[in-house]
Amino acid sequence: MSPVGLHVIPVTGMGEVRPGDVLATLILAAAPPLQDGDVVVVTQKVVSKAEGRLEPVDPDDPASHKALVEREAVRVLRRRGDLVITETSHGFVCANAGVDLSNVERGYAALLPLDADRSARRIRDGLRGRGGVEVGVVVSDTFGRPWRRGLTDVAIGCAGVAGVADLRGSTDSFGRPLEVTEVAVADELAAAAELVMGKARGIPAAVVRGVDPTWLRESSVAAELVRPYHEDLFR
Amino acid sequence: MSPVGLHVIPVTGMGEVRPGDVLATLILAAAPPLQDGDVVVVTQKVVSKAEGRLEPVDPDDPASHKALVEREAVRVLRRRGDLVITETSHGFVCANAGVDLSNVERGYAALLPLDADRSARRIRDGLRGRGGVEVGVVVSDTFGRPWRRGLTDVAIGCAGVAGVADLRGSTDSFGRPLEVTEVAVADELAAAAELVMGKARGIPAAVVRGVDPTWLRESSVAAELVRPYHEDLFR
Repeated sequence: MSPVGLHVIPVTGMGEVRPGDVLATLILAAAPPLQDGDVVVVTQKVVSKAEGRLEPVDPDDPASHKALVEREAVRVLRRRGDLVITETSHGFVCANAGVDLSNVERGYAALLPLDADRSARRIRDGLRGRGGVEVGVVVSDTFGRPWRRGLTDVAIGCAGVAGVADLRGSTDSFGRPLEVTEVAVADELAAAAELVMGKARGIPAAVVRGVDPTWLRESSVAAELVRPYHEDLFR
Repeated sequence: MSPVGLHVIPVTGMGEVRPGDVLATLILAAAPPLQDGDVVVVTQKVVSKAEGRLEPVDPDDPASHKALVEREAVRVLRRRGDLVITETSHGFVCANAGVDLSNVERGYAALLPLDADRSARRIRDGLRGRGGVEVGVVVSDTFGRPWRRGLTDVAIGCAGVAGVADLRGSTDSFGRPLEVTEVAVADELAAAAELVMGKARGIPAAVVRGVDPTWLRESSVAAELVRPYHEDLFR
């Protein structure tokens, strides 16, 4: 592999994840040998499954799913037809409060992790303890957004890798202060990882190798990436 | 290089781009040898420079920049202090109508390309004609977004690589129809490329190698990724 640039490697063959499974162990068994400085991106779906964040729903009654969405939402921002745009207890704005039926056993829905930063830390600590590697971890989920069609993967939790890289004090190639100083690195890592996952293929994790070492630090999506209600111009 | 996964390679050493420069030529000279199926991500800044989309501004008078923003905006959605969230003639929602002073010679501002899909096609055609390679091209820019802090790179133009990958008709690993069927591939490619560019380092392009070959097709950001006003729930 060339040492220049990033390498994004899908983690295949993890198998179906069940409540109580230790994700760090499953990742170490399925991923290519991890290296210090790698970032491991893990999808919300397997994190929720491992943490037992599954709720029974009646697969033949859409009202059963809808009731769960209403329960998980702290605020409904918009409704159109079957689409419900919600704010969750974590401060995420997404469809259906993150309650998701895809890639979950029939009769169950997956809820978001209670605290995906903590989930990321747990995986990071597990990879350190069981694998002896110092890596960053991003927990990703697939969200829509205003203004633009299509969905992208974003970070809902992180540990050991920056949520936002702060470039304040840096200058551009002409020596002037940068206008863009806050790059949402964890979201871009989640997006890069999605490119090798594929919704239909059900690949639940990816390794990003070659990230800027200055991004590897203590971090939190809640503190760095969630825009508080009072700062938001569109709620 | 491992054949598995994606490789994101920064294109360094392109030098300062000037009006009239042919980007395909500069990219071919600076990039690693391109291969069929690569996606080349090029930042808006160098596209705007090559296309002469530069306007004089008085560097000592912020009102001069502001007047340009008002001229380029077709609609102002929100104002807070110096922050102006605008809709552009292309339908993009971004700060300052995309008028940008960073990494531009003092005394000038860069405007968005008039039609970045056409810019992408021109670069794609140039790489085909001058380099004999069949690649996709994404023109990227750095935008903020509601709900979340930090900025990410998104696609403002594309050619030869999907804006949105349509997974309708696909099923999940349990055989059920997917809930997420429209992945904004071009935005995720732009985000992945940003990870190797770095605002301060001023790297203006990156090559993404190893993308899903089904994404390589005729495409357009305007048609696939820009959400029309009447579809948007937050304008």
